[in-house]
This record gives sequence, C-alpha cells and structure tokens, in this order.
Amino acid sequence: MSSKFTTREADFPRWYQEVVAAGDLAENAPVRGCMVIKPHGYALWENIRDRLDQMFKETGHVNAYFPLFIPKSFIDKEADHVEGFAPEVAVVTHAGGKQLEEPLVVRPTSETIIGHMYAKWIQSHRDLPVLINQWANVVRWEMRPRLFLRTTEFLWQEGHTAHATAEEAEAETLQMLEVYARLAEDYLAIPVRKGIKSRMETFPGALRTYCIEGLMQDGKALQMGTSHNLGQNFAKAFDIQFQDTDGQRKHVFTTSWGVSTRLVGAVIMAHGDDRGIVLPPRVAPVQAVLVPIFRKPEERDAVLAAARRAIDGLKAAGVRAKLDDREQLKPGPKFFEWEKKGVPVRLEMGPRDLKDNQVVMVRRDQEGKNAVSLDVLTETVLKTLEDVQSSLFERALERRDAMTNKAASMGEFEEILDGTGGFVEALTDGTDESEKAVKDNTKATIRIVLEDGDVGGECMVTGKPATRRALFARAY
Amino acid sequence: MSSKFTTREADFPRWYQEVVAAGDLAENAPVRGCMVIKPHGYALWENIRDRLDQMFKETGHVNAYFPLFIPKSFIDKEADHVEGFAPEVAVVTHAGGKQLEEPLVVRPTSETIIGHMYAKWIQSHRDLPVLINQWANVVRWEMRPRLFLRTTEFLWQEGHTAHATAEEAEAETLQMLEVYARLAEDYLAIPVRKGIKSRMETFPGALRTYCIEGLMQDGKALQMGTSHNLGQNFAKAFDIQFQDTDGQRKHVFTTSWGVSTRLVGAVIMAHGDDRGIVLPPRVAPVQAVLVPIFRKPEERDAVLAAARRAIDGLKAAGVRAKLDDREQLKPGPKFFEWEKKGVPVRLEMGPRDLKDNQVVMVRRDQEGKNAVSLDVLTETVLKTLEDVQSSLFERALERRDAMTNKAASMGEFEEILDGTGGFVEALTDGTDESEKAVKDNTKATIRIVLEDGDVGGECMVTGKPATRRALFARAY
Repeated sequence: MSSKFTTREADFPRWYQEVVAAGDLAENAPVRGCMVIKPHGYALWENIRDRLDQMFKETGHVNAYFPLFIPKSFIDKEADHVEGFAPEVAVVTHAGGKQLEEPLVVRPTSETIIGHMYAKWIQSHRDLPVLINQWANVVRWEMRPRLFLRTTEFLWQEGHTAHATAEEAEAETLQMLEVYARLAEDYLAIPVRKGIKSRMETFPGALRTYCIEGLMQDGKALQMGTSHNLGQNFAKAFDIQFQDTDGQRKHVFTTSWGVSTRLVGAVIMAHGDDRGIVLPPRVAPVQAVLVPIFRKPEERDAVLAAARRAIDGLKAAGVRAKLDDREQLKPGPKFFEWEKKGVPVRLEMGPRDLKDNQVVMVRRDQEGKNAVSLDVLTETVLKTLEDVQSSLFERALERRDAMTNKAASMGEFEEILDGTGGFVEALTDGTDESEKAVKDNTKATIRIVLEDGDVGGECMVTGKPATRRALFARAY
Repeated sequence: MSSKFTTREADFPRWYQEVVAAGDLAENAPVRGCMVIKPHGYALWENIRDRLDQMFKETGHVNAYFPLFIPKSFIDKEADHVEGFAPEVAVVTHAGGKQLEEPLVVRPTSETIIGHMYAKWIQSHRDLPVLINQWANVVRWEMRPRLFLRTTEFLWQEGHTAHATAEEAEAETLQMLEVYARLAEDYLAIPVRKGIKSRMETFPGALRTYCIEGLMQDGKALQMGTSHNLGQNFAKAFDIQFQDTDGQRKHVFTTSWGVSTRLVGAVIMAHGDDRGIVLPPRVAPVQAVLVPIFRKPEERDAVLAAARRAIDGLKAAGVRAKLDDREQLKPGPKFFEWEKKGVPVRLEMGPRDLKDNQVVMVRRDQEGKNAVSLDVLTETVLKTLEDVQSSLFERALERRDAMTNKAASMGEFEEILDGTGGFVEALTDGTDESEKAVKDNTKATIRIVLEDGDVGGECMVTGKPATRRALFARAY
C-alpha cells in the first residue's frame, strides 16, 4: 500500500500525470489535445458545476444555449478578438457532403455569436439587464496539452451580460469575480488572489479583465477564472443598441466571465499528496467510503448488515457515502483505490469492530486511524468532513502565504522564482516593454496588478520611477 | 388577449413555429439549421434532463464525457454506421492555422470513440458491466431543419453500456426503453407506444432498435427516444474483448440509447393549443405565476405584501412559483405572456381579492377562473398542478386512442392517413420491398413492429400471406 508515484518534489508534472491516471479522473483521447473525462472526474466536475450554477441563479442569472458553430466572419468583427483567437480555432469546411460557402469556426468562446443575438433581443432599456450563462464545450487548438489544465476541447461556463450603464457592467464584472473567489475558497478549499490583469494579459476585446489566481504546490500560479468588462467593444462590433429612458439610442455595456474544467486540475495540484489526489469534501463525489472486512462467511452477513445501517445513517444526514461491497476485491486494494481517488474519509468495519460497536476512521488528509463509536458515527463523519475541508484550505493558505514574497530588484526576483517560486510582489514602470522583459528573462508574468500610480520606489527592470505594484508568478 | 396565432387546424407547422417563438423557447441561429435555446426553453430542457439523469443514476449509470472530435477513420470502421452517418457529418479540416493530417468529424453520435476507449478499459469480466451515460451536443447536417425537432446541432444524452452476455445487453436495452417511456408518460404527459423497429428503420450498426413513439396533435408520429442493442457489432469493429470466467477472451455486447432536445418539440406538439404552448407541471420551469393587480399607490403595498406571502408559501411547499412584479407592464400583457409561455397555473390578486381573502386562479389547460381562499392556496395549487398533469396525459391519451386505427387494405390505409392521420395498424409480408412501397406511396413508415410470424391475413401491399403486424404512421 505504499506510494508508487513519482513524488511532487522529484517531478511535479509527472506526479500530476500519474495521480490523474491513478485517480481515474481522465485520460488522453485519440484526438491530440482532447481528453476523456472518466466517471470519477466527471462527478467532481458535476459537483463544481452544480454549486456554481446555484450561485449564478442566486445572483439573478438564467441559463441558455447558443450554437457550437460560429460563422467565420463573426470572429473577424472585433479586431482584438480575431487577433487573439484566429490562430487557435478549429474550422469546419465541409458538411453534409459538400464544401461550405462560409467556413464555420468551432466556438473558442461565444462573445461574437451571443453579441449577434443580443443585437436582436435588446431594443429598449426595459430589456436590460440581460443576465445569461451557458454551460458548453469550447475548442482552442492546443500545442502543449495537459489533462484538465490545457486541452483542445474543454467544458466550461460562460456568462454574458448586457447593461445600460458602464457602472452596472463594472459591478457585474466584480460580482462574478467574487462568486468565483467564493467557489474557489469555500468549496475547492483553494485560497485565491483576485484582481485586475495588465493590458498585455487582458482578454482579446475586453476593456478590463479581472481574475482569480491560485498557487499550486510547485510554486506556479494557476488562473482559475476570469471576469471581463467588455465595455462597448462588442456592442459596437455587433451593433447592440437600446433606446434609453431619455429616448436616445445607445450601445449597451457587456461583460463575460468563465471558469472551466481547469478547476479540476487546480484541485489536484493544490491538495494532492504523494499518495494521490485529495478531494475537498464539499465537492468530492464520494465523501465517505465504508470498506467491510470479514474472512469467514458467518462474519459476512453481520458486518454487511451493520455496514448498510451505517451507510443509511450517513446518507440520511446528507453525506455522499458509499459502501464498497465488491466481492472480488480484498480490503487492502480497496483502501488503496479510494486513497488514490482522494475520498476524504474512509471507514473500515470488521467483526472485532462490530463487537466493540465501532468503526475505524481514516482521514485522507492525515496519517493514522481513529476508532469511532457507531453511536456517534454520523455526527463524527459530518464534523470530520468539515474539518478536512477547513484543514485543506488552511494548509493551502499557509503554503500560499509562505510562497508570497517581495522583490526589490531583478536579482531578488529571480532568486525567489528559482528558489521557492510562488507569488512575487515587485515594482515596475508599468510599460508593456518592462512586463515583456520580465517574461522573456524569467518566464514570470503579471498575475494581478495590485496598484497603478504613485507607488514609490523604482522599476526593477529599468530603474525608472515605479508606477505599478504587481503580483508576478510563473504560471500554467 | 385573444389568440393571434395561426390555428393548429389551419396550418400545424406554422402554428408550431409561431408558438415556439411566442413562448420564447428558441430561435434560429445565424448558422443554418442551428438553434439558440432561449432561457425559458433551456429551463424546460434542464428539468427534463435533471429528471432523466436521476433515473439513470437510480438504474446504476454514471456520467462521463468523451470528446467532440472523432478521427474520420473511426467512423469508417463499422460498415453500416459509416453508410448511415457519412452523408450528414460536419468535418474539421483546418485547426491551429494548419490543415490537419486526418480530418476530424464532429460527433454525430459517439459509439465509435467510446468503443475505442472501452477497448482499453475493459479487460476482464470484473470490468463489466460498464454503464456510462454522457450529456453532450452532437451535429448531424440537416437539410430541412425545424426548431427542436430537427436541428443540425442538438443537445442529448447518449448511454453506452458493455456487458458480458447477449441477455444482459438485451435486458439493459429494454430497461432503458422503459425509463424513456416513464419519462414520456409520467413527466411529459405524453402516452407512447413502445416496441421494436423494422430492419429498415434500425440504427446503423445496431442489431435491434427499440423506440418510444408519441402521437402529435396533427396525427403525425414522433420518435421520442431510441434504445439500441448493438450486439457485438461495435465490439468487433473496435476489438472490445474481455477475459470471461472460463478464461476465454470474448467480445462484449454493447447497447446505446438516447433522447434529445427533440423532447421539447414533443411537449409543444402534444399539448399546445391555439393560445400557445401548454407545459406539463412536472417539467414546467414556472409552475405557478402570481400577477398582482393594483391601480392606486396605497393598494400597491398591501397587494404586493400579500402576494409575497402567498409566493413564499408556495415555494416552501416545493412549487416553482414566480411573482411577476414588473412595474412597467400592466396585468393584461402579463397574463398574455405567461399564457404563451405555457405556465400551468396563473394566480391574480387585486385589492378586492385581498379584502375577500382570496386569489383568482386560472388553469392553462382550461377556460374560466376560480376564486381560491388564501387559507388553502398552497394545497389547492399543489392539487391543481397534479390535476393539470393528469388531465394533459388523459387528453393526449384519448386523442392518441381516437387516432389509432386498423386498416385491412391499402385503400383503407390511405383513407385513414388522409383523414384523421394517426397510427394505423396493418399487415404486411414483412419484406423491405413492401415496407418501401408503403413509404413511397403514402409517406407512412413502420413506427413499431407489433408482431412477426404467423399473424394470419394478407399483406396489404402484395396480397401474399401476412407475416407481420405493424404500427404505421406518417412521422416527423
């Protein structure tokens, strides 16, 4: 039962590949860059999706569905957008046995087609705001694919809203950023830094892009979600106008925001250990698994009956509990399998436990075992799940804070990156050139602009007076 | 508030288009044959999906996700399958700025790519059965598109299972047919005939195709779901083998089964009336809407406060209830809007009602209004929703039975089809030729084979001894 995985320290990318496979989450598809999301991985995504969907509905949004195919001419309508996405789109040129008159792009994101529809739907201030989300698959041709983190096809949600004023659009953009941060912290147990992107890192076609950034155990940042204030860029490109209360026709202000199956990758890299993945209880497909133990046939019935009662009690209390009563597998391999699948709480019940009116409980995030009386099993499991949830968050937070540093010079900056890695706060003169120089020299990018303006100090690149304080990191 | 729609009797297809648009369910996308599913239509689909997903899980299935793109060579591996689907696939030839070495087909269905994966996953009898479903979009190039009924892209679920024996595969195929029939009858309130397809109507690559068939108000049948026993056809094409308990390597037996957004079309055509769509309460996004009525500002507060209390009571009882408190719309247009959206129960509350401690209740499926005491509002609405649900089913059943007839000759057969339409039971000699002759002459197809063998009587086409009793209809 000891780990067979490459350790995180020895080779993090390889560890990642191994635990994703061993955790039965996903594997590569025969089409390069695409993935098959296996049942355990998909159930995890479903839990994330359902939670987020509820948060969207609580903030007044509704779901809809827009087509997979976008006329190529649509993508071309917004100058930055086409520049950003044209190199990575997949194009349908033939269909129904014929060459198409106009090639169709498989959506890399849906601002353009949704903009086209909103132009029809929105006529008056009474039609605003429009608050729509869609759950969909999108395709961006990927040169260096990695399961969940970067795949040619991925699953995501994309919210698209339209508003009468710039202020409302900005408020919506920030509200959804907050929703994402809550999802990450309260459900995925991943502390995030949130804030605004630099111009270079802004979504093609957006006025401003906000993001949440998590820090993975290898010291690299992962952008976990983005929320874009699109200003009137798409409204002008697609002529989305409304008659305002003053009788004037005006362009709307739009936003878009999304998170994807990449979040599954975040969970793995934030919490996994050298024994495999570790799932936060609030999104774990199975929160508690019970493995019955018996040798003799006469033990079997008594143990299984007690195990079923325990599972029923847990389920009645809302725990996603599973009885692993597979006959052909011994307990050892079962323990190992659930460990690799990251199940937060494992319960073991044998004849002796039964006699002592107890089960043995093992937390996935800790070493050691504890005996728990069957009389208090349900409440103990409920409490333990909450403990695991908060422990994972606390551990990730400590790690993140320990890996967040300030650099006063390029020398310090590189030293930190090559040492612990993590987030590095530093000053620059705010130019694209300096940002690019940092990236070219160190592979670190601005994850979040913390402050623009009179920040004091000197740019670590040019030595000129600094006008920007930013959070840098090497990132996925 | 009178209907502005073309009547069903005057022009059913046009009525359909008009009520779909007026009900705000969907509209055509800028790409021919594709649709945009609007929030109200999508919420209806979500309710159908969630119910079905629960039924799948109750029968032991899990969800997963397979890629959108399938290498063209995969489709070519099963002879019937390629013949069936090649003419209607969309093909990606360029991606990432380059021409692809092998073109990629946008999945029309996923037997091939899933077969490829199952060949890797299945090694031993211990790996069986595999019971996986996926919710996905698929693309089949459509020459005569119609919203929900026939669209180039549609949303669906496709179950794909693998079994050790032919018997288990057949049992699974029939179990899922039963699940579909329950969904149709108990939730969509549409009575269905279920049974087996003729060879000509069998899914390309299947051994046997079973289906559920509903009858629409215009007398045309609609295939609402199919369940295929694929035998070992795909197992052989993709080499899906397992080591059985006897040590022998054997090909598995597979099934696949699916329903799609077409079900939304079925609901519209089965229950809609000349005032618009009518939704069965169990899947209606809004089950009860309350429209407050007031003229003077001093009435406003009292009415709205009472309305909110009523809505809270309904929601607490699990009713999907909505308060329509939009300020800029008068009650009349609100009534009309909810009627067109098919909401089963409408409540109206004005100052006089409030004084009398009552609301006015209007059932979407009936004429007339009833006063309901506020003291018993919640239980009355709950009971009424159940009544509407069963009334819709009963009405559809009566209609279906009235439109189910027997024909002893081609003359009678055509007379029925051109008269009431509907299902026609008739005898044939069981050959493809006779089936084709019926189709060519009357546009009717075999929806279900009722009995093969010694059925007595004569083939209505050839006059030869009949060997088949079948249910025919003109169909969507």
